[in-house]
Amino acid sequence: MPYDFKYTRRVAFAETDMAGIMHFANFFRLMEEAEHAFFRSLGLSIHGHDPVATTGWPRVNATCDFRAPLRFEEEVEVHLLVTEVRTRSIRYAFIFRKNRDEVARGSITAVCARVEKTTGKLAAVPIPEDLRALLQVAPQELFN
Amino acid sequence: MPYDFKYTRRVAFAETDMAGIMHFANFFRLMEEAEHAFFRSLGLSIHGHDPVATTGWPRVNATCDFRAPLRFEEEVEVHLLVTEVRTRSIRYAFIFRKNRDEVARGSITAVCARVEKTTGKLAAVPIPEDLRALLQVAPQELFN
Amino acid sequence: MPYDFKYTRRVAFAETDMAGIMHFANFFRLMEEAEHAFFRSLGLSIHGHDPVATTGWPRVNATCDFRAPLRFEEEVEVHLLVTEVRTRSIRYAFIFRKNRDEVARGSITAVCARVEKTTGKLAAVPIPEDLRALLQVAPQELFN
Amino acid sequence: MPYDFKYTRRVAFAETDMAGIMHFANFFRLMEEAEHAFFRSLGLSIHGHDPVATTGWPRVNATCDFRAPLRFEEEVEVHLLVTEVRTRSIRYAFIFRKNRDEVARGSITAVCARVEKTTGKLAAVPIPEDLRALLQVAPQELFN
Repeated sequence: MPYDFKYTRRVAFAETDMAGIMHFANFFRLMEEAEHAFFRSLGLSIHGHDPVATTGWPRVNATCDFRAPLRFEEEVEVHLLVTEVRTRSIRYAFIFRKNRDEVARGSITAVCARVEKTTGKLAAVPIPEDLRALLQVAPQELFN
Repeated sequence: MPYDFKYTRRVAFAETDMAGIMHFANFFRLMEEAEHAFFRSLGLSIHGHDPVATTGWPRVNATCDFRAPLRFEEEVEVHLLVTEVRTRSIRYAFIFRKNRDEVARGSITAVCARVEKTTGKLAAVPIPEDLRALLQVAPQELFN
Repeated sequence: MPYDFKYTRRVAFAETDMAGIMHFANFFRLMEEAEHAFFRSLGLSIHGHDPVATTGWPRVNATCDFRAPLRFEEEVEVHLLVTEVRTRSIRYAFIFRKNRDEVARGSITAVCARVEKTTGKLAAVPIPEDLRALLQVAPQELFN
Repeated sequence: MPYDFKYTRRVAFAETDMAGIMHFANFFRLMEEAEHAFFRSLGLSIHGHDPVATTGWPRVNATCDFRAPLRFEEEVEVHLLVTEVRTRSIRYAFIFRKNRDEVARGSITAVCARVEKTTGKLAAVPIPEDLRALLQVAPQELFN
């Protein structure tokens, strides 16, 4: 059962800002891309839907510590670790590395939610069993 | 009946890139913001919805000529002009000015579309009469 | 001496995602917009430059707790509070409100840095005296 | 000598909007990513710099025709074609395909420019010979 996943991609020009580095808000987009790639690696999509509702993962918390900048065309590895699985939520840690050096470290807590298509009503729901069965919490020494 | 609208805002830091200027793709976001502010000025929202469907304006064409850069914190005026109203689509021209100087000129053609909520089916539909009644094509000398 | 600032704007269409709400990474962009508007309110720009170097505020930490979603065209008020001023860094809290209800609460710690134009070398530097003289830490009851 | 290049990637969640499709401005970001990957395939970077100046490619024109939407997690192929090489500028066509079906077609004209680091002065310059020697205009039947 998986508890981590590595996602790698290159920093795009449009992700940089006039300070010449990747804009800090894009670290959060990269965390999300890693999360979604992790879901695909499990054979699932983060965004399910049936005729009456869609399932999604609204965030309740996100954090990031920035240690070094990322620049245009640099390749960044985002190492996702599952750090907590609760009834309705998952918490992930993300370690960003460039040439093996850690450049940032973040986290996201996301809640499993169901949105009714006609009314737009949103409610937190238990994590589906097929997903829960695939998840494991990473050993703490990996992210501490 | 209105045929134009002026929308003004300041360039944000996150909209700049490492070349020190507003990234060119953001000119298209600014056109859209002007379009939506124009709709609000008419007492309408660009994004309608009823229990079974949402109405939107998918784009079929977008263009932009860039003459001068926009920089962080500069105030840009986006002058929207309605240049064509057809059964199912509207075409707009957008003139970007900074201190009265033209810095860019763009256009968007958008189609009125209806998306069924349960099936996701999308179809072009005639422009609603209440909106059509409010629109007028701008005199050509304004955008030529 | 100011210790807080209120920045208000409307959620743009391009800031929403397929879940129908403002994408969570955009809360961090809004915090930054509030920070920059705060600097302008002090008669300063966040991004200074002289012939040999630019001054900027790279982030060392950013966090956000999300309580309720923001949707297209909703007006959000971002209430910035200065919560700590150190030799080389400032910490801000941000409270997001929609119709007076709190929808999110975040923070950013930014370091004053100087980047040499020819070499690109970046170093943390003490906060300039003219800025420091203008800053005050907000009373704790405002953000606790 | 190359005259085309294929760049493929998956649509990210943050690139979608509340209409459930990739926001139209992101097609322009994808064109740029394809352009930069094309440069890397030639062993070059789009963003050169020496001690006194940076070289970049500001855009003078960008267009896109949209035929079908792109959705979250769909894989899109961006086919870049060099359609014109002038003294100081290059024009590219971009054909977007999803499962071999064309979904959009765009173009960018970019000017080779040099920006002095200390003054920020920007001037169009002739395309460097090493790059020009690597470029060829694509046969017209590929993009007409």
